[in-house]
Amino acid sequence: MSKLVIVGTVAFDAIETPFGKTDKILGGAATFIGLAASQFKVDGAIVSVVGGDFPKEYIAMLADRGLDVSSLEVVEDGKTFFWSGKYSHDMNTRDTLATELNVLADFNPVVPENYKNAKVVMLGNLHPMVQLGVIEQMTEKPSLVILDTMNFWMDSALDDLMKVIAKVDVITINDEEARQLTGEYSLVVAAKKIMTMGPKYVVIKKGEHGALLFHEDEIFYAPALPLKEVFDPTGAGDTFAGGFAGYLAKTGDFSFDNLKKAIIYGSALASFCVEKFGTERMVNLGKEELFQRILQFKSLTQFDLD
Amino acid sequence: MSKLVIVGTVAFDAIETPFGKTDKILGGAATFIGLAASQFKVDGAIVSVVGGDFPKEYIAMLADRGLDVSSLEVVEDGKTFFWSGKYSHDMNTRDTLATELNVLADFNPVVPENYKNAKVVMLGNLHPMVQLGVIEQMTEKPSLVILDTMNFWMDSALDDLMKVIAKVDVITINDEEARQLTGEYSLVVAAKKIMTMGPKYVVIKKGEHGALLFHEDEIFYAPALPLKEVFDPTGAGDTFAGGFAGYLAKTGDFSFDNLKKAIIYGSALASFCVEKFGTERMVNLGKEELFQRILQFKSLTQFDLD
Repeated sequence: MSKLVIVGTVAFDAIETPFGKTDKILGGAATFIGLAASQFKVDGAIVSVVGGDFPKEYIAMLADRGLDVSSLEVVEDGKTFFWSGKYSHDMNTRDTLATELNVLADFNPVVPENYKNAKVVMLGNLHPMVQLGVIEQMTEKPSLVILDTMNFWMDSALDDLMKVIAKVDVITINDEEARQLTGEYSLVVAAKKIMTMGPKYVVIKKGEHGALLFHEDEIFYAPALPLKEVFDPTGAGDTFAGGFAGYLAKTGDFSFDNLKKAIIYGSALASFCVEKFGTERMVNLGKEELFQRILQFKSLTQFDLD
Repeated sequence: MSKLVIVGTVAFDAIETPFGKTDKILGGAATFIGLAASQFKVDGAIVSVVGGDFPKEYIAMLADRGLDVSSLEVVEDGKTFFWSGKYSHDMNTRDTLATELNVLADFNPVVPENYKNAKVVMLGNLHPMVQLGVIEQMTEKPSLVILDTMNFWMDSALDDLMKVIAKVDVITINDEEARQLTGEYSLVVAAKKIMTMGPKYVVIKKGEHGALLFHEDEIFYAPALPLKEVFDPTGAGDTFAGGFAGYLAKTGDFSFDNLKKAIIYGSALASFCVEKFGTERMVNLGKEELFQRILQFKSLTQFDLD
């Protein structure tokens, strides 16, 4: 068991999908990552910030799951980061209706003293300078730094993002972002190019089409579970990253073979996340359900040669 | 080893991709299906038609590969079916520049007498009434009738298409076509609906995202091999179908587990097809190369649970 540092947003989301809409509910990258990683009973700390409007029971819920919340800063006279979005009919695109940074605008991440030697660092989607700030606080070089990011930072803070990319071991981005970052259409060529920027491992997320893990000349393809319906995709990418990081922190094995398994766990957890609004399904997920789904993933792609 | 009947076009194609363009070269669904199936040294017959302008050496090449060409009709005073298309920069869409039916307009398929008891029938993409005509000539009920079709027939001959669909065991279509045929966005729901129309097995092709095989409540996901570059996608779907049908004809095992392997063989063969213009790569494909690529497919998705 390795220690895990998670940095990312803890937020309110308001979501509209073809199935319905929500008021402000619990959301944020670090929240989804923490919920997914806590399935593995990891020793993890959440580094984030919320406002005085953030319900104390949400923090208690995260703490109950074994997550250290001492560096989840509460700015009593501030408001929590808020995001609101509406998904298209086929769930493949979404419009952002509102983004209120609030307390996130002045966020200075502080890694708890006893997590500065953590072996695994999960940098959730956030301004690259905040992600860099976390890496710089580590007193011992982590075994694995995992970066999740998105096109928004490529558009608005590319220089900062490149500095972070240079310092991480694993990057997780989606297919369109990999193409944007490299100018290459082929994901094989794009992944190769990204490896020259820093990361030894490149994970390309393709939503309903699964995810690809690249390392040197090797490729692993994790399918997505074909689903009857996707209820709410919010947090699926964060959950995927959290399952990946959590499994690796639990096992402490950072080999390519173990990264494959971590991707499968991340995919399985993400397949639960989309079944309900926001964090609802993740909060109520049982160990046995997860195990059964992992078996489903295995049977989905396994075949015997003669 | 089971006998295999293949019906489909034998044609001239003129292709333009970002990598170059060709004059009239060998193409057609039955051609690609036959080339793929012949990798398994099947006892197969091609049922099709060409004009007097069709080079005799192409027919000899197919015969050399062990394919029965006695029902590849040559209309000496007619012209061979011609298709011309241009692919977009990312190869994901193509415009048809020309379609000249020529001898195909009056084609009456004739299954050779000694193939009327074939166990496997592969209905390549063609007018559904021609496909139906082949099924009706079989004197013994085949073990497996496989149908490949496309949106063109859904738009122009849906009633006829539905009659064929009712009579087949396996249908292979792409994701958009599955959605069009059923009005369902979820591929899981779409596949279920298609199974109520006739087929016991539904194969949904997703191009670079692989293929899904559905049977009752089971799903198998065959990845596509991530490629550095796709040179020419023409014939990839037919090659996939031909590899699938050929492997099943060779093994004579029509269980779900064996259909999984057949999909992998189809995917592996299709991954070669796109490496060169037209049939070039398939004509020159060796047994050992295919075996190595099958191993690559295996390592692409296989993982061990703890």
